[in-house]
Amino acid sequence: MSGPDVITSLQNPQVKHLVKLRARRDREAHGVILVEGGREIARALQAGLNPQAVFSCPALHSPDAAATAASLAGVTELSRPAFEKVSGRENPDGLLAVFPTPAPVLPEPGADAVVVLLHGLEKPGNVGAILRTADAAGAHAVIVLGRGADPYSPNVIRASQGSVFRVPVAALPEDAALEWLRAHGFRTVACTPDAPRTYWDADLTGRVALLFGTEHEGLPESWRQTDQAVSIPMYAAGSADSLNVATAAALVMFECRRQAR
Amino acid sequence: MSGPDVITSLQNPQVKHLVKLRARRDREAHGVILVEGGREIARALQAGLNPQAVFSCPALHSPDAAATAASLAGVTELSRPAFEKVSGRENPDGLLAVFPTPAPVLPEPGADAVVVLLHGLEKPGNVGAILRTADAAGAHAVIVLGRGADPYSPNVIRASQGSVFRVPVAALPEDAALEWLRAHGFRTVACTPDAPRTYWDADLTGRVALLFGTEHEGLPESWRQTDQAVSIPMYAAGSADSLNVATAAALVMFECRRQAR
Repeated sequence: MSGPDVITSLQNPQVKHLVKLRARRDREAHGVILVEGGREIARALQAGLNPQAVFSCPALHSPDAAATAASLAGVTELSRPAFEKVSGRENPDGLLAVFPTPAPVLPEPGADAVVVLLHGLEKPGNVGAILRTADAAGAHAVIVLGRGADPYSPNVIRASQGSVFRVPVAALPEDAALEWLRAHGFRTVACTPDAPRTYWDADLTGRVALLFGTEHEGLPESWRQTDQAVSIPMYAAGSADSLNVATAAALVMFECRRQAR
Repeated sequence: MSGPDVITSLQNPQVKHLVKLRARRDREAHGVILVEGGREIARALQAGLNPQAVFSCPALHSPDAAATAASLAGVTELSRPAFEKVSGRENPDGLLAVFPTPAPVLPEPGADAVVVLLHGLEKPGNVGAILRTADAAGAHAVIVLGRGADPYSPNVIRASQGSVFRVPVAALPEDAALEWLRAHGFRTVACTPDAPRTYWDADLTGRVALLFGTEHEGLPESWRQTDQAVSIPMYAAGSADSLNVATAAALVMFECRRQAR
């Protein structure tokens, strides 16, 4: 299959450029994101994003990747060694695309809009899991504050299973986020293990913004000046460990839904 | 530091034996489990388990590992290359122990006991996350049915952050599990995406057994003959994807707690 149009050299400038784009700094400098995987790319396309470039290795294709590749024009073919060099996965499915970085998305909120704010979260697995759950819970948007995890890093995209393209996402400075929330009449709810009130006992109806901090540090003092603070009761005997932050976020998001019924 | 009592050879029989124990088959043949990490070993000790052997590499110690190692007698020291060979981690903390496989634990249940049953789950990350949440939610026990993930595999122990030693765990054949549940008056609740009743609308008080199947296949027909079936409502527009099974389990476990208040 490898004819003259297939990139086989690991020193090819495009191959070297794709490897560089694994670094956040280089993605930001070029204003692009890297999306790997047939399902993930399909979700980006469904969201209306247009790829700048698509790289494919048919020998590695999963059925999902083959279907997505077939729907795209202008695909550049890579040899298996070249694709494995640019891939960030252990078992790549042979499809990788470069998209322009999506603009922040914050649609006009409805009456029971739930916005999730993430402060300082760094583990891509947690951010991705929160995006996936936010999609399932019909959250209005997820706002990533400051310089936490890049919501469009390859590992977040993967952990979200592409949900990052389905739920509105905005990475914003803290003051811009607070201003938007106030302008739209959101109540802010800090989710923190030391709050005396449980998430069951708080009124979580209407427009609410749920704030989650890092697992180790929680929320900074400035973000505790919220309208309410809630905790999830712990039943573990003698354990100070709290829940994983993505699990905590799931519980509070779905409690908003329960109360809004 | 490497004196005559330090194992440095990668061909040392103990080193080779530890590498073999990474396979479930070999652990089962020897009736042992492998526990790596200072925190995880500390939890196993707190649960009253006695190590058969402990291996330490002080050069790699985290503070947790150093503290746990100092509390143990009969520790065998390994050189850094030898420890890295037996470790299952990218960044080992220099402590690894072999324990006899714990016996299944199913204490006498209380009035609002919640038991979680896992059918066919294979991803260690999901099983570990469910164990961690079961601990936080004060679940009575987690029962792993049949030949799903080994609840004491190194990856489950790690993903549970050692909670596998804090919450009662039993790997049981299906009929033994059902018999125990019936004998103790548990109602069984199948958690499955296609159930018409939501988990909010079901009575989850009293002794309840929550059944979860694999993400791809769900529960087999035989396990759907339960007292109730519940689903978690999905709010994602146009998505057939359900929640991650560990997230779903967290939502239903904490709903049991909410209703029992």
